[in-house]
Amino acid sequence: MSKSKNQEGLSVKKEEDFSEWYNQVCLKAGLAEYSTVKGCMVIKPLGYSIWENIQKNFNKIIKSMGVRNAYFPLFIPESFFKKEATHAEGFTPEVAWLDKEVTGGEEKLAVRPTSETIMYDSYSRWIRSHRDLPLRINQWCNVVRWETKATRLFLRSREFLWQEGHCVYATAGECVKETIEYAKRYKKFIEEFLGIPILIGAKTDKEKFSGAETTYSVEAIMPDSKALQAGTSHDLGNNFAKAFGIQFEDKDKKLKYPFQNSWGISTRLIGALVMTHADDKGLVIPPKIADEKIVVVPIRFEQDKKVLVKSREIVKRLSKYNPILDERLEVTPGYKFNEWELKGVPVRIEIGPKDLEKKECILFFRDSLEKKVVKIKDLEKVVSQELIFMQKRMFEKAKKVLESKLDTAESLEELNKKIKQGKIVLVPLENSKEVEDILKDKLEGVKTLNRPFKQPNLINKKCIISGKSAAYWVYVGRSY
Amino acid sequence: MSKSKNQEGLSVKKEEDFSEWYNQVCLKAGLAEYSTVKGCMVIKPLGYSIWENIQKNFNKIIKSMGVRNAYFPLFIPESFFKKEATHAEGFTPEVAWLDKEVTGGEEKLAVRPTSETIMYDSYSRWIRSHRDLPLRINQWCNVVRWETKATRLFLRSREFLWQEGHCVYATAGECVKETIEYAKRYKKFIEEFLGIPILIGAKTDKEKFSGAETTYSVEAIMPDSKALQAGTSHDLGNNFAKAFGIQFEDKDKKLKYPFQNSWGISTRLIGALVMTHADDKGLVIPPKIADEKIVVVPIRFEQDKKVLVKSREIVKRLSKYNPILDERLEVTPGYKFNEWELKGVPVRIEIGPKDLEKKECILFFRDSLEKKVVKIKDLEKVVSQELIFMQKRMFEKAKKVLESKLDTAESLEELNKKIKQGKIVLVPLENSKEVEDILKDKLEGVKTLNRPFKQPNLINKKCIISGKSAAYWVYVGRSY
Repeated sequence: MSKSKNQEGLSVKKEEDFSEWYNQVCLKAGLAEYSTVKGCMVIKPLGYSIWENIQKNFNKIIKSMGVRNAYFPLFIPESFFKKEATHAEGFTPEVAWLDKEVTGGEEKLAVRPTSETIMYDSYSRWIRSHRDLPLRINQWCNVVRWETKATRLFLRSREFLWQEGHCVYATAGECVKETIEYAKRYKKFIEEFLGIPILIGAKTDKEKFSGAETTYSVEAIMPDSKALQAGTSHDLGNNFAKAFGIQFEDKDKKLKYPFQNSWGISTRLIGALVMTHADDKGLVIPPKIADEKIVVVPIRFEQDKKVLVKSREIVKRLSKYNPILDERLEVTPGYKFNEWELKGVPVRIEIGPKDLEKKECILFFRDSLEKKVVKIKDLEKVVSQELIFMQKRMFEKAKKVLESKLDTAESLEELNKKIKQGKIVLVPLENSKEVEDILKDKLEGVKTLNRPFKQPNLINKKCIISGKSAAYWVYVGRSY
Repeated sequence: MSKSKNQEGLSVKKEEDFSEWYNQVCLKAGLAEYSTVKGCMVIKPLGYSIWENIQKNFNKIIKSMGVRNAYFPLFIPESFFKKEATHAEGFTPEVAWLDKEVTGGEEKLAVRPTSETIMYDSYSRWIRSHRDLPLRINQWCNVVRWETKATRLFLRSREFLWQEGHCVYATAGECVKETIEYAKRYKKFIEEFLGIPILIGAKTDKEKFSGAETTYSVEAIMPDSKALQAGTSHDLGNNFAKAFGIQFEDKDKKLKYPFQNSWGISTRLIGALVMTHADDKGLVIPPKIADEKIVVVPIRFEQDKKVLVKSREIVKRLSKYNPILDERLEVTPGYKFNEWELKGVPVRIEIGPKDLEKKECILFFRDSLEKKVVKIKDLEKVVSQELIFMQKRMFEKAKKVLESKLDTAESLEELNKKIKQGKIVLVPLENSKEVEDILKDKLEGVKTLNRPFKQPNLINKKCIISGKSAAYWVYVGRSY
């Protein structure tokens, strides 16, 4: 934020100390900062602009699917939590309650950790007939989970921002189909817009959402080989409908419990974006999600007014990319280059008196760090193409990293070896919580991520823990 | 929300029981509902779509003024509140605190009622030099004020949504200028987009924001002659800068306290929109703020497929207005007309077999309830014009109502008489809290609204309460 201090670059390299590097990118690029309020973060304008672009683009997707946005109360009565037993159990440890003096004689109130219960209370009044279905509602809001572990910007904080979609269907079939569809849209959105390749699949029973029948997840694999759960879509069956008394009269005039799902992505995605794309010079924002896609840095414009005039003309011509014009006099072009590289602006345009004579300018691409000389008259066309190339290049690069990390193992020993090599490993496993507990215990912190939709052949495959017939292939690894 | 139940119209008229009518419009049009959580409301998709359009359009305005969006924590430490004494005093009664068991040994935390303190704590780290100024930050968020009075949808609830802008300047002059500018932008935005005419001016010292030097407000006058404070812009002077230790090194190398403002509009605006424009048939949404500006109702399309084909073609041609196509078979066209009138869709297009033969369709305008026959080929042009006319017509109509309610008085007796006639009255008043207390006491609930920027002549005018020389002309009336 500060324009006054000398812009400090990163003091560690991504390869050297990944965790410290991540922290420095978030802080020094101006994405976020730690708040004086323990466990909470401040999302600074650059970070928030990424979130706004996530919102804008994801809203288009869900609106095309018939989802409408709404807003439900921040506070949830204790009795609502208790209605769905597994759900209550899952969230209780991290719920923040209001002071009893505030609520007085009224019921104890929680600050929402998620909104299933408060929304489904409304749904029980809204839904009467099969004609009210499907009902597809989403909300963008803040949620609170009273984490006791140390805060990590975007990755773990007591408050974060997210969207939570909550849909209701007449049949289990429709519900399952759309639950999977939302997970697929997450994958597509995160890959296309954030340039982060995704492993999509179903969670094991042990790792599914509290109260769900099945949880589908999209997992991103970070350069330090830890998985980051980037989004989830939960098939809730009719568990919540029963708990909240949501019933509808079907075409056959019978009263039935409908089927529900919920699905969410959060400001975590910004953390995934940083880890995936940033480098030793700072942040790199994929063009599609960058608010300001271009910065124009005029060179020696103090001596040559024409440079500034042309720069302003370029800014005007490229206005749809929301370009920044850096006309500061108090800092050198080199300083400006460093600053905008730190902040991750996708394309820099440099233009000085000599370029102007040749009717040229220089494009610099933040991801590849390469430069290209371009005729000024061709700028619109070239910039448009190059932004597309960059978006694609960033995804392809990240995809190669992901692919290099994927492996399979058919024994605990082999798994252990591959985990140590920094792999995310597909293993055959029995469907059993005990087996997963043992896995986590034996290979400290290693857990199941998800079961890919496309399963390799399972015939004669044995669970690497129990030795019994495996139920599925599942990715395992450490995770955020 | 329910598509199944018979759409019930309003059972009272606006003229008969304004308060009940308002409630029915909000509930039956599907804008919002009371939550099971006492004092909180659920903003349903139609209500939220209006809020999204307010956000989208107002964001454009503030971004053009150099404001950037960010996000600060929901929780505020008790010590932050106490730093600015007047501010603390003003908010303490309605603050919702977290349970001490949650915060444990840590400091007591409040759910934000407003974010001056938490933001200025960050500002004290962000601002170092005159080059960091002006700093212009805004956030869209939820805030909580533990009201004890009964909830009124959009008007009074324990949680509401708003934007709060918080800017910092090197000089008092810049600060005052922009504080007034934000109030002016509110007026312009609310008049142009929501079609609600505004009285702009400064609050008296008694009614200003806790901690402010001066508060500017935009007041809307409702049909029941009560004022609704639609937005405020506070000049905070350097009170908060001193309290939070925000200092900058100026060009003269001296360390100085900067000057600050804060300004906000909230989901209250939706309440103002309902009261201003809705009628006995339900909601009327000004076209510029309506998400779905058109509904196409095909008539007798079951018998004549061509009607449906043409209707779909029309929807496609008018896609930029986000039109609804109501092809339901289970309800009659009359039912559909009532439903979309209740929900306030600006323009209805009716098309049946006979219209089709003549290559015509019928436009129905929600505000005037008038119809117009239009050649189908001219639809784009006519709809585009008519939406502009409607927006203007709605504002002009509301402006006439406002003007009919404005009056002046130069004695308490005259004021009393005019208040009883349903007027908002401009009176000469002394600048004194005691005088305002007496006013409120003598004319139950009547209070000062704001002092218009354009003041009538004050020479020889006496305060209507004290009889001493008046300090200003100020609007007085009852208010929400």
